[in-house]
Amino acid sequence: MGFCVGVIGGGQLARMMIVPAQNLGLEIKVFAESENSSAAKAATQVGDYTDIAQITEFAKTVDVITFDHEHVPLAVLEALEQSGVSVQPPSKALAFAQNKLKMRARLAELGLPMPDWAEVQSAAELQEFIDAHGGVAVVKTPIGGYDGKGVAMVSAASDVADWLAPENLSKFGGSLLVEEKVSFIRELAQLCARRPSGEMRTWPLVQTVQKDGVCSEVLSPAPGASDVVIHEAAEIAMRVATGLGVTGVLAVELFEAADGRILINELAMRPHNSGHFSIEGSVTSQFEQHLRAVLDLPLGSTDATAKHSVMINLLGVDDENDFVRAYPKALAAHPSAKFHTYGKSARKGRKMGHVTVIGEDATATRNSALQAAAVCLQG
Amino acid sequence: MGFCVGVIGGGQLARMMIVPAQNLGLEIKVFAESENSSAAKAATQVGDYTDIAQITEFAKTVDVITFDHEHVPLAVLEALEQSGVSVQPPSKALAFAQNKLKMRARLAELGLPMPDWAEVQSAAELQEFIDAHGGVAVVKTPIGGYDGKGVAMVSAASDVADWLAPENLSKFGGSLLVEEKVSFIRELAQLCARRPSGEMRTWPLVQTVQKDGVCSEVLSPAPGASDVVIHEAAEIAMRVATGLGVTGVLAVELFEAADGRILINELAMRPHNSGHFSIEGSVTSQFEQHLRAVLDLPLGSTDATAKHSVMINLLGVDDENDFVRAYPKALAAHPSAKFHTYGKSARKGRKMGHVTVIGEDATATRNSALQAAAVCLQG
Repeated sequence: MGFCVGVIGGGQLARMMIVPAQNLGLEIKVFAESENSSAAKAATQVGDYTDIAQITEFAKTVDVITFDHEHVPLAVLEALEQSGVSVQPPSKALAFAQNKLKMRARLAELGLPMPDWAEVQSAAELQEFIDAHGGVAVVKTPIGGYDGKGVAMVSAASDVADWLAPENLSKFGGSLLVEEKVSFIRELAQLCARRPSGEMRTWPLVQTVQKDGVCSEVLSPAPGASDVVIHEAAEIAMRVATGLGVTGVLAVELFEAADGRILINELAMRPHNSGHFSIEGSVTSQFEQHLRAVLDLPLGSTDATAKHSVMINLLGVDDENDFVRAYPKALAAHPSAKFHTYGKSARKGRKMGHVTVIGEDATATRNSALQAAAVCLQG
Repeated sequence: MGFCVGVIGGGQLARMMIVPAQNLGLEIKVFAESENSSAAKAATQVGDYTDIAQITEFAKTVDVITFDHEHVPLAVLEALEQSGVSVQPPSKALAFAQNKLKMRARLAELGLPMPDWAEVQSAAELQEFIDAHGGVAVVKTPIGGYDGKGVAMVSAASDVADWLAPENLSKFGGSLLVEEKVSFIRELAQLCARRPSGEMRTWPLVQTVQKDGVCSEVLSPAPGASDVVIHEAAEIAMRVATGLGVTGVLAVELFEAADGRILINELAMRPHNSGHFSIEGSVTSQFEQHLRAVLDLPLGSTDATAKHSVMINLLGVDDENDFVRAYPKALAAHPSAKFHTYGKSARKGRKMGHVTVIGEDATATRNSALQAAAVCLQG
């Protein structure tokens, strides 16, 4: 096998894969949705990733297919695999990422810890779950949700009456997922990478901070995590990767519950926002590791390059500020901060970039990162 | 001014500039010599850099012109500048890089330390210099030399009879440069970066090891350098940058003489092989700093990310081994080494890539880097 990676999707994750590909001298080609994608530098084809013919044509030009997102239809991936293309992660793993009900069912089979959950097909079934869980629950559409979309906090089935309407419910496969609302003290994320041939590496457990359902901040390592929690999180991630057949980077979003439990919230089978810190904060970044893993090359060390890494997302403040224009001020004020922007046009709430600071003191590192991000946000 | 950098030349230095451009969200366009250049991912034009019309067309698409090499004819650069293009470093600085006699004369005006030297136009003048310097000297062609080419160790003028032949001498501008053969204990390099508006930053002084006139190894920081030498080297680099009007990255190659003198050997007005360690070994790599400097953006911290960084060049061993094929073995054996290859076809002696290891112990770090390189060289 050669060393040419094909990435479906031209977002910032594909963009950030270009960097280690250039460094390592691996070839990377991106199948993008539009001419001006975030990953345009490596785009060799622009088209519709739901079109089997276009994706098949793209696949002929590379040695392995991987992804910037999890939305490529399974039928397309299965067709590729049947024609002998190496798809990493494979369709059988992505099936779990594309359907949260399938994911929950598989995690249950594996005996992995997660919130109470149920598959519901009617308002009555949903209400029964809510009533059995203290009058509150989290409802999720099994497919199509991301960044807080497709998730609703409910105290009555009527709160998601629209999702339960037959014409909408059928879009989600006829069911909704309902989960216990976990009383958590914080959110954590555990990243790992796995090669098709089995080698795995985990990164340090991180804490993630969400605002309005979108990641705003990541602290590596998770402050004050106990050895038990650290060990358990790494074990969970490796069991998920193995049990679901994931290859490449896997991100496991976790709740640390008030009662001490560590529970699986969501999975992502690709580099993930919670791992952006690793570009500077780890000997091997999640993007480099993902390329190595999907090519079945030996994985790199995930040792930390400094005691602490803090990543702050730069979310669009309006339709004007692309953060690059803030560089004269931001770079002058924060010469040690590493600014990343994704080449996207400005839009309120959009993930436009991020800032990472690494350092030896937890508080100073976090303050520096927050301040560096603040200069960008001021425009 | 916008943030689009145009790089003339598609070699590995341009390639390594693509990485920080992607990270920072700066636009980068490369004017390459061939379709399959090392920097092909960012190539927007392929052509002849000695052609004013082609370069002028390219310059219209960017905000600033900079370089992968110093070979663009001054007439081309002056024409660009006269039409209002920002050229960084400017032609008046590059004039010194393109002509070693002009460089020596300017450094002499600035009172900077260097080997004894003279401009010679005949065998008699050259022999006189040799006789006055213990019967040995170094002769350099003022223009066109690199990586050991255009340099000759001589004990008699007849050793460079071919260069002195009128038809060849005229190609070098009618003169040769002759320099004292310095009895040095080692070679050092001092990198700095300078913005058009004046801000400067220096990196730690490094030791370079040459084999057959080509850099083979760089140790950062230079082992056991005294505070006096460290201070002097940084001062020299900043005085050169200011005195010659250099912008972007400047590399000053130095001799540490047996008698304790620090003497300027060569200059490079671009990112330089002696600074590749900074990709992992410095908060801001020379490639990121170069982009920031030529755009007149605030410079980044040059603090070390670890106590020691060691870079080993991967020089081609034959016409087959491109080092990428060694990755399955090399990555497995050295999970903390950072391998870089430049996307070039294999050729004996060619700079194909490099390996960097950073660490806290000098000996262990160097051994690890040497071993990682050795695995690649074995193929």
